[in-house]
Amino acid sequence: MAEAATQTMSQRSLERATMRRALELAASPDAPLWPNPRVGCVLLAPDGSILAEGHHRGAGTPHAEADALALAGSAARGATAVVTLEPCNHTGRTGPCSEALIAAGVRRVVHAQADPNPVAAGGAERLRAAGVEVEGGLLADEARALNAVWTRATELQRPFVTWKFASTLDGRSAAADGSSRWVSSTAARRDTHRLRALADTMLVGTNTVAVDDPELTVRDERDRPVGVQPLRVVMGLRDLPTGKRVFNDRAETLHLRTRDPHQALKELWVRDRRHVFLEGGPTLAAAFLRAGLVDEIVAYVAPMLLGSGRNAVADLGIATIGDALRPTVADVTVLPGVDGEEPNVRLTMTPSTIEGDR
Amino acid sequence: MAEAATQTMSQRSLERATMRRALELAASPDAPLWPNPRVGCVLLAPDGSILAEGHHRGAGTPHAEADALALAGSAARGATAVVTLEPCNHTGRTGPCSEALIAAGVRRVVHAQADPNPVAAGGAERLRAAGVEVEGGLLADEARALNAVWTRATELQRPFVTWKFASTLDGRSAAADGSSRWVSSTAARRDTHRLRALADTMLVGTNTVAVDDPELTVRDERDRPVGVQPLRVVMGLRDLPTGKRVFNDRAETLHLRTRDPHQALKELWVRDRRHVFLEGGPTLAAAFLRAGLVDEIVAYVAPMLLGSGRNAVADLGIATIGDALRPTVADVTVLPGVDGEEPNVRLTMTPSTIEGDR
Repeated sequence: MAEAATQTMSQRSLERATMRRALELAASPDAPLWPNPRVGCVLLAPDGSILAEGHHRGAGTPHAEADALALAGSAARGATAVVTLEPCNHTGRTGPCSEALIAAGVRRVVHAQADPNPVAAGGAERLRAAGVEVEGGLLADEARALNAVWTRATELQRPFVTWKFASTLDGRSAAADGSSRWVSSTAARRDTHRLRALADTMLVGTNTVAVDDPELTVRDERDRPVGVQPLRVVMGLRDLPTGKRVFNDRAETLHLRTRDPHQALKELWVRDRRHVFLEGGPTLAAAFLRAGLVDEIVAYVAPMLLGSGRNAVADLGIATIGDALRPTVADVTVLPGVDGEEPNVRLTMTPSTIEGDR
Repeated sequence: MAEAATQTMSQRSLERATMRRALELAASPDAPLWPNPRVGCVLLAPDGSILAEGHHRGAGTPHAEADALALAGSAARGATAVVTLEPCNHTGRTGPCSEALIAAGVRRVVHAQADPNPVAAGGAERLRAAGVEVEGGLLADEARALNAVWTRATELQRPFVTWKFASTLDGRSAAADGSSRWVSSTAARRDTHRLRALADTMLVGTNTVAVDDPELTVRDERDRPVGVQPLRVVMGLRDLPTGKRVFNDRAETLHLRTRDPHQALKELWVRDRRHVFLEGGPTLAAAFLRAGLVDEIVAYVAPMLLGSGRNAVADLGIATIGDALRPTVADVTVLPGVDGEEPNVRLTMTPSTIEGDR
């Protein structure tokens, strides 16, 4: 009895350590953020030694399990697969991992996060049906955190939406004459580019393009465009002059002919978009907020007063203080000013309503 | 030579240590903040021993020098007076300290801060003319910091004005229906009471009294009024119903029949008011800002969105982003939420224009 307990303990601690290694593999530098999750897999021989390591390197390339199985070859028979995400059970650009593991003769699968896909989950069930031992949930929080935005998008079956806005202390995003360069500090603008780089899609309305003519690229600290750019999306019914900066050759651009946030997200989801960075004007922001389609709010507050000008957000249909939108604050960071500028404050928040439509 | 240098060194270090003691005396718990500065004085015998210590205990009571001289009696002849503020040279409710020091036969006066009063300064000059050795500036920054608001008010010859406002992230101080309880969190409101207690005057406009009916008292953490209350001042031409809470018996109240910030501050200065805590609505705040009569801004930002409602500040006559008011940020503090509330952010700022009228 005591010996068996020790063996179980040591197996658990071995698998936990192996899962940490799998998480490291998942986060490899060559693992892109989009559109697939970052996944790592380690195959353990019955004696606990490592047979093979694998990770996913982006859409169209093998999943982490397949990557490791290919290395292990026939040695995978009787092995334990330690993988950061429940093996998939559907055929996409590659075959289902559940079938590959069964075919390779893997005896036991330990996974961290359960497949969040409400449509295509079922890998664990398929494995169990084939007689494979399956244990889930080991270091699940860490695994989920690694692909937090992808997970939420998959659960919602639409892109995750981060709404970013910058405003003065009195809630203005532009002065009375429309001028808005710059409301936020150099440090805040750099921070914004850092966040843009984490998304796969930039979204604004036609009005913002017409009025502010932003380029909507991700630029580095020297204001040069970085190598991989998010897709630039303009939504709205208005025709736009092709001379606008959003149509230059620094990134791809899509004009979605709709004013409906639901419709826009639906079309972007079909195009494999997982994380929309919404930088539109007050009207577009209000439309997304009213539709309950904002999952994260990033606000940059500049210590500046205008007294008039464009409001950061348009009418939300809120009449009384009790109905105010009161997002949950995840983080408050003071961004020190550079070159004599004043500090700006960044607030990162989760709206109280994130379950789709209200 | 070497011996003289040592003696000078030790005299300097003795006087510096004595000045620290004088600063301690100035900050005694029985030294009120208003309307006079807090001042401490130590009399040193020629052998460096302490003859007497004194400090000021509020308007109408002896100044620190007189307090110490009374204790020392005839022993003050030939003494060195170490005092945190240049001795006054004018007759107010008490006689000039310069004359008292001369009459007592004090040989040397070391003071920290110079008298900031552009009208009544001259104590050092008067002492020197009477043959007293005078040295100023020792620990002057510390002494100024002890009476920072009083010093600025004295320099300006008008009350120092702190404008406090609370707003949502989109710059609203009330919802569309006028409701504003509460925009800021419990922690922010408590913090506001702490700051109110540092001022001698609360100021709002008649409109705020008519619409919001605030009590304008300083209350403790259990929401009970504290013992000493600032003067409550309402400015504006409108008549007010006597039933408003600002007219209750918890503090004194003054109705100034003017809309002019200059006029209001002039009348308050004559009434010995040194620190006005401005909590009026957007119109009154804009009037003070436009007149360049705000010396400090304290903003509480609540992570809330309204999309409509009352703006935190009314039109400032600013047309373009380049003309925005860009105060210097002295401090940013996150006030953690209590009882499940979200954190609020407090920004303390100094307006770019503080030299009276622009």
